[in-house]
Parts: sequence; C-alpha cells; structure tokens
Amino acid sequence: MKHQGKFIVFEGPDRCGKSTQATILGKYLTELGYEVITTREPGGDKVAEDIRNILLDPKNTVSPMAELLLYEASRAQHTEQVIIPALRAGKIVICERYTMSSCAYQGYGRGIDMDVINQLNDIATYDTKPDLTLVFLMSDKYFTQRGEYLFSDRLEQEDEAFRHKMRRGYREIAAKMSNTVIIDADRPVADIEKTVIEEIKRHNILEGESLSR
Amino acid sequence: MKHQGKFIVFEGPDRCGKSTQATILGKYLTELGYEVITTREPGGDKVAEDIRNILLDPKNTVSPMAELLLYEASRAQHTEQVIIPALRAGKIVICERYTMSSCAYQGYGRGIDMDVINQLNDIATYDTKPDLTLVFLMSDKYFTQRGEYLFSDRLEQEDEAFRHKMRRGYREIAAKMSNTVIIDADRPVADIEKTVIEEIKRHNILEGESLSR
Repeated sequence: MKHQGKFIVFEGPDRCGKSTQATILGKYLTELGYEVITTREPGGDKVAEDIRNILLDPKNTVSPMAELLLYEASRAQHTEQVIIPALRAGKIVICERYTMSSCAYQGYGRGIDMDVINQLNDIATYDTKPDLTLVFLMSDKYFTQRGEYLFSDRLEQEDEAFRHKMRRGYREIAAKMSNTVIIDADRPVADIEKTVIEEIKRHNILEGESLSR
Repeated sequence: MKHQGKFIVFEGPDRCGKSTQATILGKYLTELGYEVITTREPGGDKVAEDIRNILLDPKNTVSPMAELLLYEASRAQHTEQVIIPALRAGKIVICERYTMSSCAYQGYGRGIDMDVINQLNDIATYDTKPDLTLVFLMSDKYFTQRGEYLFSDRLEQEDEAFRHKMRRGYREIAAKMSNTVIIDADRPVADIEKTVIEEIKRHNILEGESLSR
C-alpha cells in the first residue's frame, strides 16, 4: 500500500538506544515543522498495550508460536489503528520495532521457520513497508553495561547466547532488506544522532511534497 | 501429527449448548473409566485466559486481523500446553471451539480471506486435527430465547445478520470437513446427549487400544 506520509522504523535489540534516538529525531523533525508521531511495538493503543503486558510479564510461560502470534496481533492492531491513519494524513511516523524484530527474536532467537514469520508479517501489516529502517547494533559489553538492574522483563532475561543469535539475525536480515541501514550504536549519543539525520537526508525522507508541515 | 489419545471438538455459535454437552459427555466417558479432559478456546491456561479477556472485553476496539491473530495465539498456546500433552498421554480431549470457529467468525462473519485463516490455523495447531468435530446449530429464535440478559461480551453483541453469516459458515465448512457432524441443537438436552453418544460410537472414538482407562 502506498501512503502520503513517511514511515521510519528503528530496529535493534533492547537497550541499543532506539528510544533515545527516536525521541531526538522526533523533536528535530517537529522543529523543522513536520507533523511527526513516535510510537512503538508492541503497543500503541489499549489493546496493543494489553498484549504487551502478556508478552513481557516474567511470570508467563508463553509457547514460541503463541509469542510470535501475539506480536503479530499487536502489530496488526498497531498498524491499522495508529500507523496507517497517520501515513494517510501525510505525517512522518517513527516507530520503534516492526517486522524485523520478529525475524530476529522469533526466527533467529527461537528457531521458528522464517517463511512462517514472513507470511505472518505480511498478513499483520497489510503490506505496509517502511521507507527507511535504521538498525541499531552494539556489542554485548555495552548491553550489560547499560544497567544490569534492568534485567526485568521476560525477553530481557534471555542469555548472551540468545542475544548473540539475535544480533546476527539483525545483521543478516538488514543485508537483504531494501531501504535499511545498520547504525553502530557503541558510539556516543550525539554521534549516533548525527548519523541518523544524515541517513534521513540521504534517503530523501523529507522530500515528499505531500508531507504535512 | 498422530497421537495416542482421541481429540473431540464441540463447535457452534454461542449458547448452542456446547458447554452443557461437553460436561455431560466428559462425565459419561469418565464413568466408563476413560481419562478425559474437557477444555475450551480461547483459554485453558493463564496466558490463554489473559488473551480471552482482551478478546471478550466489550470496551475494546479490536481490528479484525488482530482479533484473528489473538485467537490463533491463544490456540497455539492451548494446543501446545494443554491438548498435545493430553493426547500424548493417551487421554480423551473434549475441547469447546477450535479452528472451525475462526473460519465461521472471522471468515464468514468478518470477511477475512479463508486462505489466510486456514494458513494461520495450520500454523497455530502444529497440524493437530480433531478425530471428531460435532457442530451444534440452532435457529436464531432459540439463541435469543436463551437469555437476552446475557448479551454481555464483545462477540455476543454482534447482530442477527452476523449470527446468520456465522451459522451459514459452520454449515458450509462442516460439509467440507472430514470427521465432522452437524447436530440439531434446537432439541431438548437429553435428546442431543443421546445423539452425541451415538456419534462417538459411530466414529469409533472409544476403540483406540492406546486410550488411557
């Protein structure tokens, strides 16, 4: 589906700086006069947040396929209720996590067949593709430095082997996807911010004449 | 996948008598000495019950595709955590609602493409098929007689046109599915009970030598 707005996705494992950079970019674009929404998966409205709570509750035992289907349900809800209406209105949508996260976590991480995941991703997004995906990757030593006390939700509790598989997943998928750039997230916030803005410009994100501003 | 137990599914719209008949059949088989579990969709364990709460909350606006994916998530969880272990242990599983409900509600009712639903059903059940599906159907006048005060959950609030489409769905799908029988649910409970037991015998459900008793 083709819309008037622009759709930017920030991908990468937990604590790689996605939220920080999404907030910074949102402010930057708003100050330039664009209409911007920043949102995240799994979440975005009440139903999607309810699903998020099931997924992240450390007390829950969720079977791998149920986990994937819950993410896809949340994605369908979020895409239909939040992303598509904003894109139709000509806004810039900045979204933390999207289809690539399912490939990395449930595919590379849990071993679910990638064809199944791609099928589900297409179904859940009504084929809504990002105009640009930025993948933030950092080495494991930075992950553990960024707050051991934060090992709280069900997915953050996975071990280093799981995180290693996931990072490899992000790298390999990014290499195959169009409009996708890997960002070295080991660097200081201000350096990353500069790279993000360069990539936004390099991919002509701000040149759509129909963008709301 | 082939298991040692037997898998009986009770299908049909709300208030057609599935629960009553499932309880009666469960008791009957237990008294004959079989190991039986009765369970229901969406539900069966804590995660599946949490999903059920999202689906049935009348305050929630759930997009049709998210609704389907939530049912499939709950189905995957329930099949992996409850149904497959019981079948492996040689038990008789009596389950209220299964894949056919998604075809009737989300396919015929909401208009989602049936190929998508069948794909998701296969993914969510790990290809676990019922040995016998009994579809309970009653006319709309009986539905409304069985308690207007009960019009409480999100799906029961759908109108007569929706229910009509669904009933047609159950009929048409049942005609194509193997090991599937339509039961006239307008009749008294005791008559239906007799038919259920006849069908169980006619389909040789109790003749597996590996059944636990």
